Formats: sequence, C-alpha cells, structure tokens
Amino acid sequence: MKIGFIGLGIMGSRMARNLQKAGYDLKVYNRTKEKAKELLENGAKWANSPAEAGKEVDILFTMLENPDVVEKLATGKEGFLSSMAEGSLWIDSSTVNPSFSKRMAEAAKEKNIRFLDAPVSGSKKPAEEAELLFLVGGEPSDFDKAKPLFQKMGKDAVHIGENGKGAAMKIMINQLLGQSMLAFSESLNLGMAMGIDKKMGLDILLKTPVTAPILDVFRYRIENNDYEPNFPLKHLQKDLHLFTETAYELGQPSPLTSAAKEVYGLAKHKNMADMDFAAVFKYLHEKE
Amino acid sequence: MKIGFIGLGIMGSRMARNLQKAGYDLKVYNRTKEKAKELLENGAKWANSPAEAGKEVDILFTMLENPDVVEKLATGKEGFLSSMAEGSLWIDSSTVNPSFSKRMAEAAKEKNIRFLDAPVSGSKKPAEEAELLFLVGGEPSDFDKAKPLFQKMGKDAVHIGENGKGAAMKIMINQLLGQSMLAFSESLNLGMAMGIDKKMGLDILLKTPVTAPILDVFRYRIENNDYEPNFPLKHLQKDLHLFTETAYELGQPSPLTSAAKEVYGLAKHKNMADMDFAAVFKYLHEKE
Amino acid sequence: MKIGFIGLGIMGSRMARNLQKAGYDLKVYNRTKEKAKELLENGAKWANSPAEAGKEVDILFTMLENPDVVEKLATGKEGFLSSMAEGSLWIDSSTVNPSFSKRMAEAAKEKNIRFLDAPVSGSKKPAEEAELLFLVGGEPSDFDKAKPLFQKMGKDAVHIGENGKGAAMKIMINQLLGQSMLAFSESLNLGMAMGIDKKMGLDILLKTPVTAPILDVFRYRIENNDYEPNFPLKHLQKDLHLFTETAYELGQPSPLTSAAKEVYGLAKHKNMADMDFAAVFKYLHEKE
Amino acid sequence: MKIGFIGLGIMGSRMARNLQKAGYDLKVYNRTKEKAKELLENGAKWANSPAEAGKEVDILFTMLENPDVVEKLATGKEGFLSSMAEGSLWIDSSTVNPSFSKRMAEAAKEKNIRFLDAPVSGSKKPAEEAELLFLVGGEPSDFDKAKPLFQKMGKDAVHIGENGKGAAMKIMINQLLGQSMLAFSESLNLGMAMGIDKKMGLDILLKTPVTAPILDVFRYRIENNDYEPNFPLKHLQKDLHLFTETAYELGQPSPLTSAAKEVYGLAKHKNMADMDFAAVFKYLHEKE
Repeated sequence: MKIGFIGLGIMGSRMARNLQKAGYDLKVYNRTKEKAKELLENGAKWANSPAEAGKEVDILFTMLENPDVVEKLATGKEGFLSSMAEGSLWIDSSTVNPSFSKRMAEAAKEKNIRFLDAPVSGSKKPAEEAELLFLVGGEPSDFDKAKPLFQKMGKDAVHIGENGKGAAMKIMINQLLGQSMLAFSESLNLGMAMGIDKKMGLDILLKTPVTAPILDVFRYRIENNDYEPNFPLKHLQKDLHLFTETAYELGQPSPLTSAAKEVYGLAKHKNMADMDFAAVFKYLHEKE
Repeated sequence: MKIGFIGLGIMGSRMARNLQKAGYDLKVYNRTKEKAKELLENGAKWANSPAEAGKEVDILFTMLENPDVVEKLATGKEGFLSSMAEGSLWIDSSTVNPSFSKRMAEAAKEKNIRFLDAPVSGSKKPAEEAELLFLVGGEPSDFDKAKPLFQKMGKDAVHIGENGKGAAMKIMINQLLGQSMLAFSESLNLGMAMGIDKKMGLDILLKTPVTAPILDVFRYRIENNDYEPNFPLKHLQKDLHLFTETAYELGQPSPLTSAAKEVYGLAKHKNMADMDFAAVFKYLHEKE
Repeated sequence: MKIGFIGLGIMGSRMARNLQKAGYDLKVYNRTKEKAKELLENGAKWANSPAEAGKEVDILFTMLENPDVVEKLATGKEGFLSSMAEGSLWIDSSTVNPSFSKRMAEAAKEKNIRFLDAPVSGSKKPAEEAELLFLVGGEPSDFDKAKPLFQKMGKDAVHIGENGKGAAMKIMINQLLGQSMLAFSESLNLGMAMGIDKKMGLDILLKTPVTAPILDVFRYRIENNDYEPNFPLKHLQKDLHLFTETAYELGQPSPLTSAAKEVYGLAKHKNMADMDFAAVFKYLHEKE
Repeated sequence: MKIGFIGLGIMGSRMARNLQKAGYDLKVYNRTKEKAKELLENGAKWANSPAEAGKEVDILFTMLENPDVVEKLATGKEGFLSSMAEGSLWIDSSTVNPSFSKRMAEAAKEKNIRFLDAPVSGSKKPAEEAELLFLVGGEPSDFDKAKPLFQKMGKDAVHIGENGKGAAMKIMINQLLGQSMLAFSESLNLGMAMGIDKKMGLDILLKTPVTAPILDVFRYRIENNDYEPNFPLKHLQKDLHLFTETAYELGQPSPLTSAAKEVYGLAKHKNMADMDFAAVFKYLHEKE
C-alpha cells in the first residue's frame, strides 16, 4: 500500500513518522522541504507538488493549517485532486468546519475519489507517541480500510457518521479545550489576586471534578511560565472561529464560545499568536 | 457540645440531619418552620429567632442564600452575634464573596466570637450522603475544633488559609462548574444542530479529557429534559456574580465569567431561575 | 441606457421603482415573480433568469440577501456573469463582506465586466423616499458613470476607495447601528427596572449626545411594541456576523461586536428573526 | 447661604470654583489639601475633616470617586452626617449605584438631614464651563432649593423622581457613553485594518446618524494619540460596573454592558487606568 502525506508541521511530521516506523512507504510533500528531513532520511520519497504527492498512492493524508490551505492544495493548480487515481482515498486530518469537509467530499466524489474527514484529538506529544484519537466522518467501508493506519498513529478511531461528522466532533472537542483552559485561567488568576498561593490553587482546582482532566498537562506551563508551542494559540483561536462560524450558519447561539474566541483573539493581537494556547493564562495575568 | 444551625434549605437541612444522626444536639432556626419538621421530630430544638439559635451554643452553623441574608441574621435586630457567647464559634457555610467573609470575621471578632468561612463543594446528593468538601478559611485552631463536625457532613475539609480564603476557593470552583456546564451545552447543542445524535455526542464528549468529570452527573437531566433543582440556576448565577464582583474589586479581568454570568442571567430572566442550573442547556436549545 | 435589477425584496423593490420613476427602462428578476408586480405594471420587463437579466444591459444592479445568494446568481448555472456584455457594469448593493466583494470584482474582471460594490446606508423608508446613502468601492470612472443613478435612489453617494471599500464602510456603519440599538435597549430596560417611567427614559436618553440620533426613529416601536420589519433582525445579525468574520480574517479583535452578534442571535433563535431588529429591546424586556 | 464642598478632583474643583465665582461662600475639604489651593486663595475656608465641612452649612456637596469613599466620609468617624444640622441638605453628585443613593437617603433621614442624589452628565470641560447636566433624585422642594446652585455649575438640572432616580439616570447615560466609544473604536479599527484611511473613516462615521454625537469630542484624541485624562478610564469602568451590579440586583440581563465592562477592564489591567477612557481605541489598536 502506497501512502502520500501532505503537511509536515508539528502534528503531521510526527504522524507520518509513525506510519513510516510501522513499515509503510511514504511519498511526502510540504511547503518547506526542510521539515521532511527526518522522513526522507528514513526512506520517504519527496514529491515536488501536491499533485505529485497524490499520484499513484492508495491513500493520501493531509494535515494542514486551515480550510483555505486545504482547498488550495486540493483544487488549485497542481492540486492533488487532479492527479489522484479513481477509487483512491483522501483522508483529511486538518481541523476544518464541517460544511467545508462536506464540500471537499463532493469535490472528491466528482472525480470518483473517496474521502474521509478524520481530524484528531491530541497535540504534539500524543502525535509523537501514537496516542491520538481519530474522529472520522465518511463511508463505513472507507473507515474500515483506513483503520489500520489510524491505529498506527493513534490509540483509537471512532466512526461518527457521514462526511462532515468527524470535523463536527473535532470542533466540539476543541471548543471545550479552549473554554476549559480559559475558565481555569480566570479562576486561578482571581484566586491568586485574592491571595491564594499558586501551588495550592493548582493542587485543589486540578483535583476537583469541575476541572477538565486535560488541564493537568498544562500545570507545568503555568508554574514555569513556559509557553513553547505544542498547540499554538492562533490555531486554537481558529478552531473557536470555525465553531462560531458553524453556529452562525446553523442558527445555534454560542455566546460563551464567541466570548472565548475574542479573548484568545486579544492575546493573539498582543503578540501571543505563536505561543502555546495556554498563554491565555499569562495574558490575563500580566499587567503589561 | 451544643450546636446551632440556621438555614434549612436544600443543603442546610441535609447537613443538619447528618450532624443529628451523628449524635449532636441541635438547636435550629429557619425562616419557615415547616422545613425543620424532620429535624424537630428527631429531637432538635426550635429557636424562635437567629439570636435564640446562637445563644448558649458552642458552634453555630449558617447555610444561607446570599450575603445580604447572612448579614441581616448576624447583625440585624435579633441577630445572633448579639447573643453568642464569647469564645464560641460561628461557621458560615453559605457561598459569599471573600471580602464579605472578611467583614463578618471582623464583626465577630469585635464581640470575641470566633469565625470560619467554610463553604462546601457539592450539592443536594453529596449533602444528603455526607460527601461534601469543606473549603475553610480561618485560624488553624478553629479549623481543628470544627473538623470532626465537617467529617460528619462531608468526605473532606481543607484548610485553605486565613478568613476569606475558604470563600475565595468556593467561588473559584463554582465558576468552573458554571462554565463547564455552559461550554458543554454549547458544544452538544451545536453538535446536534450539525446532525450528531444526542446520545453519541454525550458518549464521546463525556469520555474525553476536555470535559469536566462532574458533567457525568447531568447526563440524565439532558437526556430526560429533567431540571428539578438540586442546585437552582439563580444560585449558580449568584456565584458567578460574586466572582465577577470580586474580580472587579481586585482589578482582575474575567471576560469569560462575565459572559457566562449573563447567559445564566438571560435564562433566569426567562423563567428558569428555580430550575437546576443545567437548564442552561435547555435555554440554548429551545426555540421558544 | 438599459438597466437590469436583480433582487426585489424590501429594499430592492423600492430602489428599482425609483429608477423607473426617473424614466429608466428596467429588466427585472426575482426569486418570486410576485414581488415584481408593481414594476411590471409600470413597464418593466421580466427576466426569466439571472442570465437574462444581465443580457444586453449597460448596468446591472443586485440587491440580495447575503454573499451566498449573490455568488450563486452571479456565477452559478444561468448566472449573469455568463451573459453580461464586455464593458458593462455590475453594481452590487447587497451587504457583504469586503473580501467577498473583492472576489466578485475579480470574477467580473476575468470576463471584462466592470464592478462596483455599492451597499447602502438606510432601510425601508429611506429606500422608498430615495434618501439612501451609497458607499461605493471601485474605479472612479465607474463611480462617475453610476452616480446619476445613485442620485435617483439616494440623497448621496460617496466614493470610498477601490473595490471592497464600499462593503467595508457598510459593515462598519451597520455594526454601529446594531450596537447602538442594543446598548440603548439595555440602558432603557434597566432604567425601567429601576422605576424610571418609559416615556421619561426615552425623553432624556434620546436628547443626550451619548445616543445615536438614528434611534429617534425607533421610539415609536418601543412605545408601541410594534416590530413590523423594515430591517429584519436576521439581516442585522448577518451584518454583525460579516463584521466579526472580517475581523477574524484580519486579526482585529472585536469583543463588543461579537457579544452583540450573540445577543441578536439569541433573539433570532427565539422566534424574532423576521421582526424588525429593534425587537432586541423586546427580547431583553420580556420574561417569557 | 453657606455651602460645604467635599471632593476636589478633576470635576469637584471646577464645580466648586463656579459656585465661588457666583459669589457663594465655601467651606471645602479634600483628601489632599493641595488641590484646594485655588479655592483657598479666592476666599474659601478649609475644613480639617468631613465633619467640619458639614458643620453649620446649609448645603453640602460631595463629588467623590466611588460609593465606598462616599460612605466612609458620610458615616465613618469624623463623618459629616454626625455634624450637619437638622434640616440642612446634602447633595451627592458622585456617580454611584441607585441602591446606594437610597441607602444614603435613609442614613440622612435618620438624622433629619435632607438628601438629593444629583450626579452630572459631562466631564472636565463642561465642568469648567458650567455646562454640566444635573440628574436629580429626591423631594421636589429640595430640588427647587438647590436649583439655583445647579444653574451656576451647569446648563440644566432635571428632576427625575425620588431618591435614587438621579443616580439611575446617570448610570444609564454613562453606559451609553462607554458603549458608544467602544463600538466606535471597534468599527474604526476594523476599517483601518481593511485599508480605509483613518481620516476618511472618522469623516464618514462621525457624520452618520448611527454614531453618538458626543464622539466628535474624541476625534482629536484618536487622531493625535492623546489620552491625557478628562474622564479616566478606571472611572468609566466603575460606572459600567455599577450598571451591571444594579442589573444583577434587579434581574435585568445586560450582556453587552458586561462585555464592555470587561474590555475596559482589560485595558485598565494593561496600564491604562489613568488615561482618558477613549484609550480603549488605543488598546484595541496596538499590538503590544
């Protein structure tokens, strides 16, 4: 089985590497070739364009920054939808809005190419350790075909429903992630302003059932003021934007999510775009 | 040891009953005597006023609706601070703002009465089953004295720091509770609007680490549209108000909490004040 | 000079009628023919498709509900960009986001069709009385050509800059309109809750310089609970959405506008989509 | 007629000076004596305490920073309510919440002292030029008695209703002021991000009827990045806080005002507390 992989950022490079370690032959493409170095040294082939990456592969993965980039590489000049074989399978693991996934599914279908939206829950470390959770939308038979590959890159893959449903579940989860971090930041910052020691605040809040368990992972960052990015703040804000945009399209109010989107947006505006999203704690804390 | 107990609502009645079951003699007071029925039948004495409830007791508990009520019963005419013995201990388990707790501590101190702020984490069921968590501010010696009683009503008691710190930790926790429920409601509602089945949405969201574990408790409510109150929405909104008020006093921004306070406020305005706070899901869901 | 006009809703029907009264020959298209009745009785020709409306006209106006509809009628099957003559001019008066206007300008340019984005400030009554303000983006020569027509439908037309700038100015103005109405509604509602008579509240607030003068127009609605739509709430909310979407694209925070968008969104969700947008006062006022 | 005046900040010093120019004898008190210099040089007497300022005067004005300060100077040790003569009149022009004004009215009444809440609309320049607008709550006879003095300090005085109603109207107006400035800032900032020239944006927005006329005054600030305080940002934020606090007390939702309060709060947190409140434009504009 031949696999193409487009998009070798923080996430994609690690996911591709896990496929490679499992023995799959890879053909890879990235905007900057430099990030493909480790993969190429281990035997992957370099594709000079998205079209070349999609040519003569059974399955093509994409892991890209946002819907605009996905669309450009799929349907633009040298786009991979022009070169993929009929019956081959495109799996998009980028975080995008569900209506976009449905549109890509249709664009693929016109060329008799199969499509799964398969975004992942988990960031840098789970990507590295093959501990991701795949949330998948599309035909059951395509899901079954892809499942062995998902299992090389993650601990589990769930089939949510038809195309768009994987993307839907992903923005639901990332909205919760963003909100949890921000609510926690407001709570702990007020606690500290009220004179509660940071360590005691963390100790107690992190063990109550009102706190999302994932926040344990960020304790180190808050204690050490270390916001080296695993999941950059601008990407989390993009996901909140996708959530509110979808909510608008469907007429579903989401006042809290809109408020959260704006707080991350303010932090982004103030030079924190490329820090880890947990830097929203720092944004609310610092006076300058 | 003689115990007074003022405030026999959903929480207070259950807490007092657990003390009674553990063998303590109680003198109780409530605005409406009717709610004291079970306690009186089991041997508690009725006090005709707050002052009478505080007279000749070693420890007096209060579990009241908001700071205004606490202040009125403590310092108003027939208030209990006028009747409590020097050296006796007042424990306020109401959820109030920390600056209020500090003020009450001072009012007590002027009369040589000891004071602990000891709000609880947990609602109706944990109150009934003696599974509350007490968050305590005040002198260590007073904490040690009260600890055996806390253990009859709860599973644990944590000494956070001086007076006001128990109240502080409580509003930090309830802010997280309110935010978690609201963020979850927006996520699940959008999921349903995107065509994801409610059951599948609940199944997946409730097992991801981005969701606060306490939300499991509310699954039944969302599935059955059952908002019989354990923790009334108006009380949760009050706690968010205390949080934002304290944040204003201390100059700490809390944009997400303010947004959440307003969403619960809208639900309250639309006839949901006395439903369980989880009804915010219903508020965002229904079109009328 | 031959004029085409597509979109005969509350605004478009009145604008087209003013052109007709000024002596211009019109060819008109609308989703439902019924709304063209008065125009047809006065001599306008009916076009059976967008393509037919754009054929053999010098200038084609569009006044449509949102970007998606504009795009569909312009570039879809039977779209007017396929039939318009080279060198003819398309003027889009719909309220859309600036990036969309720029995209339409490019789509037109590919076919050597000229393009102006020319949204209007003003609703039903100014449309009827030719008192609109046109905010125009595009080439100065195209603006000069169109100016005589703008003057038949409005009191003024301002050339803001290149394509997209008319659309930009429009969403800036409608954001202020939506915010003004909502801020005023919160102020007056709280005044009434504090016991201030509605009439006195209106009298004083409407003459202070902190209130946008346009709100005078809505006094009647608030006093008479009359929300017959001139500018439907769902359209105002759409404009706030376009504003926040553009703000996201450009990385400019807009926390107040996002909050306003959500409040109108809640009102829309609760059956007020088709009322005048001033019904946000009613939404915040009523308890059911 | 003898007049006392307590609180000689930006506003109070100018108001007192206008009374003095009109020929009234003044006895003045301020936390720092230095600010009384000009008044003392022109014949005012210095009071060493609030109590002394209230002693043997017919009318006592207070113009103070917030409710806590008013309460302390009125009812604390050396407070003026202990020294004012029965039948004398206390006029509080501070911006406070209506429930606080009612409480002060009651405190005064217990000592047979008359009370008016009489906050003003207008900042530094109108205070200097006697162009303020007084919004007054209290008995009509007290209003009549005070009116000649209001007319020396302002262009008009309106009797709104009983005690608390003046305070109510004031927070309604300042909420609109704060919202107008913030909505305008978001609109203009997005315009500039979309490529619209700042001058053209100001030109057009300031003449449309969707913009509050008072914003003309701030054009200079925005063009020159000059935020020397007339009305400090922290005071405007305090007024929004009083609004939301009152809204909570009365169960009236105010989602937009809460959002605005938080944006000003963020600017305050980031070193802008003592700039003019128009600096919220700068806060949303700058990237650091």
